[in-house]
Amino acid sequence: MNSIIIFNLMRNDHHTIFGINGCHAVLESKKYKIIEILIQSGSAAEKDGKITHALGYHGGHIKMLPSTQFKSNFQKWRTQGIVVRFSGRIDSDLPSYKDKKGNIGLLALDGIEDPQNFGQIIRTSECAGIDGIIITKHSSCGLTDTVLQVSQGAFTQLPIYIVNNLNQTASQLKNEDFWITAVENSIESKNWHEIDYSGKVLIIIGSEGRGIKKINLDNSDFQTTIPMQGSINSLNVSASVSAILFERLRQLLSQKRLIKK
Amino acid sequence: MNSIIIFNLMRNDHHTIFGINGCHAVLESKKYKIIEILIQSGSAAEKDGKITHALGYHGGHIKMLPSTQFKSNFQKWRTQGIVVRFSGRIDSDLPSYKDKKGNIGLLALDGIEDPQNFGQIIRTSECAGIDGIIITKHSSCGLTDTVLQVSQGAFTQLPIYIVNNLNQTASQLKNEDFWITAVENSIESKNWHEIDYSGKVLIIIGSEGRGIKKINLDNSDFQTTIPMQGSINSLNVSASVSAILFERLRQLLSQKRLIKK
Repeated sequence: MNSIIIFNLMRNDHHTIFGINGCHAVLESKKYKIIEILIQSGSAAEKDGKITHALGYHGGHIKMLPSTQFKSNFQKWRTQGIVVRFSGRIDSDLPSYKDKKGNIGLLALDGIEDPQNFGQIIRTSECAGIDGIIITKHSSCGLTDTVLQVSQGAFTQLPIYIVNNLNQTASQLKNEDFWITAVENSIESKNWHEIDYSGKVLIIIGSEGRGIKKINLDNSDFQTTIPMQGSINSLNVSASVSAILFERLRQLLSQKRLIKK
Repeated sequence: MNSIIIFNLMRNDHHTIFGINGCHAVLESKKYKIIEILIQSGSAAEKDGKITHALGYHGGHIKMLPSTQFKSNFQKWRTQGIVVRFSGRIDSDLPSYKDKKGNIGLLALDGIEDPQNFGQIIRTSECAGIDGIIITKHSSCGLTDTVLQVSQGAFTQLPIYIVNNLNQTASQLKNEDFWITAVENSIESKNWHEIDYSGKVLIIIGSEGRGIKKINLDNSDFQTTIPMQGSINSLNVSASVSAILFERLRQLLSQKRLIKK
C-alpha cells in the first residue's frame, strides 16, 4: 500500500480506490470529484457491465492502459483492472434527530485502531441497516484509503460523522431521545440479545486494546456483552459488531418495525 | 509473509506463528511438537504473564534474541516479540455423532478462498461455541500459516475436519440426525433467524465468489439468507458467519438448552 500512502501525503484530500465494487460505488455515487480512472486493457473491470455503465458519466477521465503498464504500476494490489483517483469530503455533518421518529441506529467507535477492522465495520453496518457511524477527530485510525478500500464502497452510502468529543455527542443524542448501549464486558452487562434495540439507539464499541473510555461507559444507559463459549475467547471487534448489528436487525424484522429505506 | 511461505515450502508439516495470543495457545495446547521459541529481549511477550507461564513447559526450545537481531528477522510481522515454530497435525478425524445428544453445531465451508476470511471464521466459531469446522481436501484455501495466524490460536481448540467430499459427509451427518442449513440467497431461503438451530445442525457456507455447489444445496434441508438493508450489499463472508453463529447461540441461550462445555 506504499504508493497509496505516498499519494495521500502529497494531496490530503485525494483518495485512491481499486477493485470493481469499490470503484463502482465511487463512480455511481456522484458525491466526489473524479480525478482519473485507470483501466487495464482486457481486464475483468473492462468487461464488467456495472463498470461500463458507471463510466458513461465520467468520459473525460478514463485512461486505458496496456496490461503490462497497468500491472507494473499496481502489481501488489488486487485491482481487478481498475483504479480510481478522486477527491472530496468523505465524512458528513451529524444531523439533528430531534424531529425524527422510528428506528434509528447509530454506531460509535471509541478509538478503533485497525484500518481493516474499521473498513469491515463500515461494510457490515451498511448491510445491517445502520444509519451512521460516529468516530472522534483524534481516533487512532482515521478515514484512510485502506479503510475506504476495505469497506468495499460502503463509505459512499453510509454517513460517517467525525466529532470532537464522543461524550458530548452522546449527551446531545440522549437529549434527542436516543438510548445508549456500551459494548463492554462488566458485571453490569446484559447479554447482547437482552438489549432492546428498537427506536433511537446509539451503540458504542471500544478500541481493540483499551475498550471504552470510562466517561463514555458512565454516560451509557446499558452495558452489553457477548458471552464467549470457548477457551481462546478472542472475538474480533468487527465480528462482535456483526453479531450485535444483526441482532438489532432481527429484533426490528421480528417486530415488523423496520421501515425499508 | 514471504519468510513464512518459504519456510513452509521447505518443511510441509512445520508451522510458524507469532504474537502473544496465538503463541500462548500453541504453547499451552501441548498438541504440537515445539521446534523453537524466539523471544525478543525487553518485548511485550517477555513480560507477559501468560507467556512466561507457558514457557515453563518448553525450556529447551527458547532462544532469547537481542532486540535488533529479532527486529531485523521479523520486522514486517506484528510479533509482539514472540515467534514460535512448531510441527504437528492441525486437522482432526471427523468423529461419529451417532450416540451424541444435545446441541452440536458444525460449520462446513464449501470452498472458502481467502485465508483472512478462513482464519476469522475459525476465530469466530470458537467464540460462538461451534463444535467443529469441515473443509474439503481440495478447498481453494488450505490450513496455511496465514489462516492459523489470523485465527489467533483458535485452531488449537476448535477441531477442523478435512473431508474428501462434502456432499458425502453431509449425507453421513444426516444419517446421524443432523439438520442441514445452506446459507444461500434464493427464493426458497428463509431469514437467518427463522431457522431452528437447536439439536444437531450442519451449517454450510459457500465460497466468496461462487457460493455453494448445487449438489450441496440440493442435499440441504433448509436454505437461509441475511436480507441486505443497504445499497452496496456486500457483506463479508466472515461477517455473515458471525451473524448466523451468534443467532444460533442466542437461540440456545434463550431456550436455556446450552450445556456449557
